[in-house]
This record gives sequence, C-alpha cells and structure tokens, in this order.
Amino acid sequence: MVSIETLSRDELQNEADKLKDLYSALKAKNFSLDLTRGKPSPEQLDLAGELLSLPGPDYRDGKGTDCRNYGGLDGLPELRAIFAELLGMPVSNLLAGNNASLEIMHDTIAYQLLTGNPDSVRPWSAEPGIKFLCPSPGYDRHFAICEHYGIEMVPVPMRADGPDMDVVTELVNDPQVKGLWAVPIYSNPTGVVFSKEITQQLASMPTGAPDFRIYWDNAYAVHPLTEKDAPVYDILGMATEAGFPNRPLIFASTSKITFAGAGVSFFGGSDENIAWYKNNLGKSSIGPDKINQLRHLRFFKDASGVRSHMARHRAILAPKFQAVLDILDERLSESKVATWTEPEGGYFISLDVMDGTAKRTIQLAKEAGIALTAAGSAFPYGKDPNDRNIRLAPSFPSMDDLRAAMDGVATCVLLAAAEKKLSESPGT
Amino acid sequence: MVSIETLSRDELQNEADKLKDLYSALKAKNFSLDLTRGKPSPEQLDLAGELLSLPGPDYRDGKGTDCRNYGGLDGLPELRAIFAELLGMPVSNLLAGNNASLEIMHDTIAYQLLTGNPDSVRPWSAEPGIKFLCPSPGYDRHFAICEHYGIEMVPVPMRADGPDMDVVTELVNDPQVKGLWAVPIYSNPTGVVFSKEITQQLASMPTGAPDFRIYWDNAYAVHPLTEKDAPVYDILGMATEAGFPNRPLIFASTSKITFAGAGVSFFGGSDENIAWYKNNLGKSSIGPDKINQLRHLRFFKDASGVRSHMARHRAILAPKFQAVLDILDERLSESKVATWTEPEGGYFISLDVMDGTAKRTIQLAKEAGIALTAAGSAFPYGKDPNDRNIRLAPSFPSMDDLRAAMDGVATCVLLAAAEKKLSESPGT
Repeated sequence: MVSIETLSRDELQNEADKLKDLYSALKAKNFSLDLTRGKPSPEQLDLAGELLSLPGPDYRDGKGTDCRNYGGLDGLPELRAIFAELLGMPVSNLLAGNNASLEIMHDTIAYQLLTGNPDSVRPWSAEPGIKFLCPSPGYDRHFAICEHYGIEMVPVPMRADGPDMDVVTELVNDPQVKGLWAVPIYSNPTGVVFSKEITQQLASMPTGAPDFRIYWDNAYAVHPLTEKDAPVYDILGMATEAGFPNRPLIFASTSKITFAGAGVSFFGGSDENIAWYKNNLGKSSIGPDKINQLRHLRFFKDASGVRSHMARHRAILAPKFQAVLDILDERLSESKVATWTEPEGGYFISLDVMDGTAKRTIQLAKEAGIALTAAGSAFPYGKDPNDRNIRLAPSFPSMDDLRAAMDGVATCVLLAAAEKKLSESPGT
Repeated sequence: MVSIETLSRDELQNEADKLKDLYSALKAKNFSLDLTRGKPSPEQLDLAGELLSLPGPDYRDGKGTDCRNYGGLDGLPELRAIFAELLGMPVSNLLAGNNASLEIMHDTIAYQLLTGNPDSVRPWSAEPGIKFLCPSPGYDRHFAICEHYGIEMVPVPMRADGPDMDVVTELVNDPQVKGLWAVPIYSNPTGVVFSKEITQQLASMPTGAPDFRIYWDNAYAVHPLTEKDAPVYDILGMATEAGFPNRPLIFASTSKITFAGAGVSFFGGSDENIAWYKNNLGKSSIGPDKINQLRHLRFFKDASGVRSHMARHRAILAPKFQAVLDILDERLSESKVATWTEPEGGYFISLDVMDGTAKRTIQLAKEAGIALTAAGSAFPYGKDPNDRNIRLAPSFPSMDDLRAAMDGVATCVLLAAAEKKLSESPGT
C-alpha cells in the first residue's frame, strides 16, 4: 500500500480488510516460528564441530600446565593472548573465564554492591540509591541485572554513532550514577558502532562518582556482516591516558563464535581492577575450566584463526539478514509505517513500527504462531516510551522459516498500523 | 624416641641434638615437595582421560537437546539423575552447573546478602550483623567466603560423629546465626562422617532465624578409601518432614571424580530453594556448559559407572593414605607428641601435633622445602586456638615424594616438640 497517512477513511478500511484476509491466511498456516533470541543456528554451531572431540590426549598448554587440575585463576595465557590481540589490549589485562561473560558482569555488580570497587568510599548497597545509564534500545539482560538489584536505570537515547553524549555527560555529574551499559560494536539491538570520538569522550569525561564504571560489553567485536572489520578502539588505553584507568570493565566471549552455551568468556580492565576482580573471584573459584580454554586454543590456533572462522559465520548470517531486509523493504517501505536498521554486524535488526503499535504487532504475530521478543524488552523496565520498537533476531531459524516469519511479521505490522489509524480516524 | 614427657632435660637435649642432625640432613636434600592442597594426582586425572575427546560428534542429550546452544538453566536431566541417585534425593531437586560447587556456595551467600532467601524478612546485609557456625577444624575456603563478606564465624568443636550438637543447638537460638557449614561425609580435614542422629538433629532443630541455612557440602559422598560406601542420609527429606524444607542447601561436584578444574557441580534443595536459586542465577547465566555435562554423561553412563570409577581412584589413593599413616605411626607413635585421624574416605589426614608447635613445625618443613597448608587454615580467621592442627593432603605427590615429605614432616614435628619442651624445662 502507499503511505498510510495519505489514505481516506474508506481507503483505510479497504486496506484493513485486505490485511485482515492476509492475516487470516497467515493464521491458517499454523506456524510455530521463533525470532526472539540471538541464538546461533545449528549450521553455525556445526562450524565449531571439531571442539566436540578436542583437546584430545594432550592436556597441557604451551607452558606445560596440566589443564585438567585446579588452579590458574587468570585462564590460559595463550588463549588470552589471542583475544587480547583481537580486542586491542595487553594480555596481562585480560582474563579468560567460564562460559558466560554475562556472569562476570553480574558478579562484578554483586561485588560492588557488597564491598565496592577500588575507588568506592563504601559498598554500593550502602549508598542512598544508585543509578546506571542505559543507552536505549539496549540489551535486556543488562537491564535485568539492574532491575533485580534495585539499581535505578536511566534511559539515554541511542544515536547513529553511540549514546547521546550531551545527555550522558550531563547525567554522570550525579554522584549516584555508578555505571553505564555499552555494547560498543554492533550494539544490541541497533547495530550501532560507537565512534572513536564517543569512545574517547566516555573514557575521559568527568563524573560525579569516583567509582563510576563503564560496562563495555564487546560481545560482537569480531562479528561483521560485511568484509570490513569494525574498528576496535582501545578504551582502556584512552581511559588510562585520561587519568581514569579503572573506568572501563571490558567483556567478551566466544558464545557467538564457537558454542553459545559452551564457550569461553573474557574479562578485561586496569591492573587494579584485575587484582580486585581476582581477589573477589578467588573466594568462589579455584580456576576456570582450563580444558575448555585449551580446546578453544587448539581450535583457533591464533587471532587470524578467529577471523577466518568468523568469515564462515558471516557466509551463513549475511544472507539471512539480507532476506529480512528485503522483505521489510518489499512489504513495508511504501506504506511508511516502519523504519529499521541495516546493521553491518552483530545479531539483530531493530524495527520501529508506527508509534503505539509494537505491542499489538507482537500480539498479532504471537496469535499467528510467530514468537517475537516481548514488547519493550530493549528498554529499562521493559517500557518502550513510544511502544514502537521490535527486536528481530534472524540468526536461528532456517532461511525458509525466516522468510515465512518475516512475511508474517510484515502483515502484522501493517494490520496493527491500519487498526490504529482507523481507530483514530473520525467515524461515520 | 620414647614418650617425650618422660625425658629428663639432658635426655631431651640429647634427643634435640639428634633431631637437629636429622633436620640438617633433611634440608641438605633440597626438597621441593607439596602437601598443601587436596589436588588429584596426574595418575587419578588419567582415569578420566576419555573425557578429553568426548562427547564426539553427537551433541544431543537423550531428550534431543542441542547441548551446544544457549539454555537449560537446570542442567542435563540424565546427568542430574545419576547424581540424584548417588545423593539419595529427587532429580527435580538437583541442578547441574559449571565447574565449581564452591562458586554456587559463594553465589547463594551473595544472593542472600543482597536480597535474602525465601524465608528472610530482609537481605542479610541489612541485618545488624550475621553469623555462621563453623565446625572446626573445617574447610578453609568455606571460611574465606564468610571472612570476605564480614560474616562472623563462630567455631563449633568437631566430634567423631559430627559437630558438637550441644553447642550447635544452643547457638542456633541466636536469630543472627544464619548458617552452618558442613561437609557431612569424610569431612575436610577430619574425615568425620556425620551420624544419622546428628544429621536428623541438624535437619529438625529449632533455630532463632527463620531463614537459617545448612551448607551441606557433600564433596566426598562417593569417595571412600575402603570397600564400604559411606551412608548418604537424605537431609532434604528429613528437613522437609521436620517442617524445614528450605533449610539444607546441598552441594556436590565431580572435581574429585573426573577433572578437578573441568568437572560438573551440583546444587540441591527444596522446590522453593531451587526456584529461588534459578530466579537469581537466571540474571547471570543463560545456562551451564551443557557440552561438559554431556561429556560426563557419556563417560559415566549411570550411577554404577561413577561407583566403579571411584574404585579406580581408591586403588591409587588408599596406598598413599596408608603410607602416610605408616610413617606417622613409625615415627611419632612412641614419642606421643602427636595424634592423627585415620579417615575412611575423602582427601585429608588431620594431624594434631603438640600444642603450640603447629606453626613451628610448618615453618621448619617450609625451610626444608616441604610445603604444608598454612597453620590455622582449618579454623575460622586462620586461628587455631591450640596451634596444633596440620592438614595433610596425600593425594597429589607421587608415592616416593609422599614418603620423603612425610618422613621430613615427622622430623619437623619431633624437633618442634623437643624445642618447645626444652624451652619450658628449667634451665641449668
């Protein structure tokens, strides 16, 4: 249909009727499709199939460490070196852990609530109330940690090159603002890549809290969807130069490189932060699963091994993203009821439908057997102020399922928009 | 030498001189031996060598779950079933996790400090001060968690069949007592097996705190050193029957079954505790390493697979324990300066030297190149009130090293005792 704004009430009614027929046909297909989570597809997991029988009989790393036994809180030096190179930071400032960087994010927040960080005057839980800045739309699991522990979340608008720094630099004057969430490369869900200027500003801006921390979740650092790698800026170096070495806490993992549930996580920071983290971690662990780290080391061999592995992921993922973009373009561009991102990497497409229709669209899709991420989930407290954002995760379904699901979603977007317009239009 | 108590000062001086010569000869050997930690030996780790190339190409569990991907916070049902059988509890009340049960102990304490447990009126950190009962000697890593978070530790004497229940039942009337540490089978380091009566009493005693928890660390449930398995009492069932289903938090792992650093941990409790734990855990994890769980499932096959695997460990461990006991007997029994445990399972021998000489013994051993666990480490705050306890860990060294180390330790024990007696004896 043409731009929905230009239609008369009768034309609108006519369009709505057609869309209802389309929607009935969609429901009749009895789909059971899922676009909710950024899960790698089985085909992508197959790329790391070798891991299933690694490391093999040799259980020692290059330093001769018996990786089967206790110990080695830092993780294997050779594997840390590979990811330090990819993340552009010194290997001594990067640790390797178990299967979830989210766990390290959670744990560092728990440590700070209970005992503070090296720059804290008191434990965060002893403060009159603390806040985190949340560039939005953002990652729901980040926000869930804050909500769980009663950390007030302050949304910050997301722009094309990172969070709105006018807003950020103003808000961080508040000494109760202790943290900021960031996915600097191919941000979840917008695909935004933080510019060098914004990274520099985040690293060097004055803050009210001396113990302010940036949660630099570099989950998609090596996950381009084109042949061009994203620039990895050295936020630790920048912050150190600006006199705030302890500001960034850096996270990465192989969850979307090897096996989503059985990968290796990484934690980086200043010497002082690393010592602080290890002092806390040492209370709960005698060391990470070094055999799994050795397995990954044998599989990758070096940093270029990771890059070439990611090229194989790209060959599977890029066509799926293209298919989603093609269907969105084909079905929704003329009607002007929606806009969407065209990410150059990462795992998501962020779809903005007509204001006030995201919930309804998701409901319609659900009733037609297409699961979408819950409305508002990319916003603090699950509240999308405009009820317009839908996070699309194209990775997991097969190409056929993906096309079917997206075509269905497009129908739901249009129907929800037409319903809304009709309800607002003066009745006869 | 004969009982040190019966010697005259001259005889004592004579003995001390002989021991000094022995000690000089010991130092001249330039040993570098380590009896500090309960680490499995390489030979024991070899027993699980198959794990190094498991699970192999088939990455699905019996329910068809793709173990490579995200999800499954509970862990693999089939592996949980094996350990539920071994621990004598319902599979629905036992979860499987990553490589460290210590991590789950730490995390549940952190959760309770931050938000309380299902029976708490407020977070533990909002209480005026909380306490844990610590049967001592006990496990240093348990105590380290308490010390780190400022939880006051109250020592409780350990008896042959468990903690002194007269003391325990009195102390738990204090509503600030929120927890008790327990290693119910082959306790660390005493080897004590809690009796059925004591288990029953712990499960059913009245407590001042409604949110009191027993940390039931069943680390050595299937680790006998004889052919007789230890009885595994169903503390969850007992507590449920007594009206306190949420009291026990149950822990186990394969750290001393397969690979110390790359095993699988288990967490058990009431339905309500499991739901509470998962609600917390779900903020930090999208699921444990299911591939490692599948690896363990393929390796063990069933509960009897675990039992027969443990028999192979026993064949390696039992002679080492016997060697330590033989040397202690041969070198120390006549002098009557020490007593020690003769454990029927687990990883430690607890050696009590003459009061006031444990630190000195450990110092002498250190200077002779024999590392022993730090003095007092089996007590809260590292304070052995009698300065007499030394934890011996016979598992890791080779048999030759173990004999050499223990013979050296015996010399140090005797020399420290003779020095002490001499210093107390009226001078000439």
